Amino acid sequence: MIKFLEKDPYAPIQYSYEVTRILYSGRSKFQDILVFENPFFGKILVLDGVVQITERDEFFYHEMLVHVVMNSHPYPKRVIVIGGGDGGTVREVLKHGTVEKVYFVEIDEEVINVSKKFFPSVSSGLGDSRVEVKCMDGAEFVKMRQSDVDVVIVDSTDIVGFAKSLFTKKFFRSIKNCLTENGMFVTLSESLHFHKDIVTEVQETMKSVFPAVDLYTAPIATYAGNWWSFSVGSLRLSPREVRRKNSLKTKYYSEEIHRNSFLPRDMYEKLLARKLPW
Amino acid sequence: MIKFLEKDPYAPIQYSYEVTRILYSGRSKFQDILVFENPFFGKILVLDGVVQITERDEFFYHEMLVHVVMNSHPYPKRVIVIGGGDGGTVREVLKHGTVEKVYFVEIDEEVINVSKKFFPSVSSGLGDSRVEVKCMDGAEFVKMRQSDVDVVIVDSTDIVGFAKSLFTKKFFRSIKNCLTENGMFVTLSESLHFHKDIVTEVQETMKSVFPAVDLYTAPIATYAGNWWSFSVGSLRLSPREVRRKNSLKTKYYSEEIHRNSFLPRDMYEKLLARKLPW
Repeated sequence: MIKFLEKDPYAPIQYSYEVTRILYSGRSKFQDILVFENPFFGKILVLDGVVQITERDEFFYHEMLVHVVMNSHPYPKRVIVIGGGDGGTVREVLKHGTVEKVYFVEIDEEVINVSKKFFPSVSSGLGDSRVEVKCMDGAEFVKMRQSDVDVVIVDSTDIVGFAKSLFTKKFFRSIKNCLTENGMFVTLSESLHFHKDIVTEVQETMKSVFPAVDLYTAPIATYAGNWWSFSVGSLRLSPREVRRKNSLKTKYYSEEIHRNSFLPRDMYEKLLARKLPW
Repeated sequence: MIKFLEKDPYAPIQYSYEVTRILYSGRSKFQDILVFENPFFGKILVLDGVVQITERDEFFYHEMLVHVVMNSHPYPKRVIVIGGGDGGTVREVLKHGTVEKVYFVEIDEEVINVSKKFFPSVSSGLGDSRVEVKCMDGAEFVKMRQSDVDVVIVDSTDIVGFAKSLFTKKFFRSIKNCLTENGMFVTLSESLHFHKDIVTEVQETMKSVFPAVDLYTAPIATYAGNWWSFSVGSLRLSPREVRRKNSLKTKYYSEEIHRNSFLPRDMYEKLLARKLPW
């Protein structure tokens, strides 16, 4: 049996997948890109040795990254998506009828091309007329804008290597300056099981920039540590509240999941105080 | 680097752990037993090639297996624990001041001995005067009792091999006959990511025996699929409600976690109808 062994230097458990077919293997200007097929997960996209999405379970991550802030914002019209070259995040954003414009900023055009070819159900929204694709550094893009977007979503690779610039105070400040008065920002922030110090660092950096900061989680089988966290920075409103009634076609996300996904207050405070007992 | 590669025939991802020291390796009458040390998780107990507990994260599983039913029952005095030879489940049960008697029924005495030697913080309750240890088949033990225990907890290995007898209608009937009028029963029921058909089967079998059945989950990094499910069978009361005020010393479990851990109703109904979209 051919196996793919994930190379995640920050994970104390390495995940191993059966490979039935290698569909693509190459190197872009930024990273190694691999697509292979697995009997359970279907097609799997790997960047620099780390699994990004699988056909079977990508919606857990994409729905939870997108719909919490989008349903908590009273009326999101203009959205920036940074990273997420596979297109899954954009696909979910477009489910919201309020959306008029999506700036989709992905540094690596090759990831977009590979996804269009091998993951059509994920990249399906990229041709939508509301979407403007920008192949450039997200940090550069947000610097150029001023108070004209309602939601910013960062869908990067793990917080190592070149994605690190998307987790700095400077970058968070640029995002804040992009936002309209009820603006919200969400980013992945790694696993509460495996990387709680990283989670806390992201939260601390966010708190030094945004008036309201919070954290929620989702169970994602294919990300190391799996108890995956998402960090929200908001200008005014708490992301715990669902402010819009809509009937999104989702597989995992629901209003109840939205509310239950936030950490209990006492656990959240322990996280910030670096006193979680694990 | 020495690696331990988990051998779980039912998991589509195999987990691999670094091994810094092998502390014990042997075969009991029932299974292979291995204890090794890992830089992140500390000591790890493996039965028949599958990780059972780690020093670092065992409390997620043990707290969630025990405290949901124990805090939902109005006054649990007599408890049966089947399996869980490491002792972690018994340790958590003893945290409830109402408890007068714990029957601890473990088929494999060797697991108890290994745990006492290598996991003293887990097996710490086994010498308590309220605990009666029975090294025998749990199915045989429950057959002998009649309406005199308040809570039954099954802490078995995965639902394959000799643990299968702990998931039959016959066994569930014996458990029902053991219980007092507000009696509750809980068992692990595998991962919602990887084994949802098994989860549904356990639920269906339970529903054919118990008047009230429900399901909750917890994030457990070291169990394949990690989005771990627990199935509850109850004679009268819903396990979603916390009926007792106490200040348990826990690391993960809390009243809020208790309530949030149950599946939203619509997702639960889809599970039972085998219509979950993954």
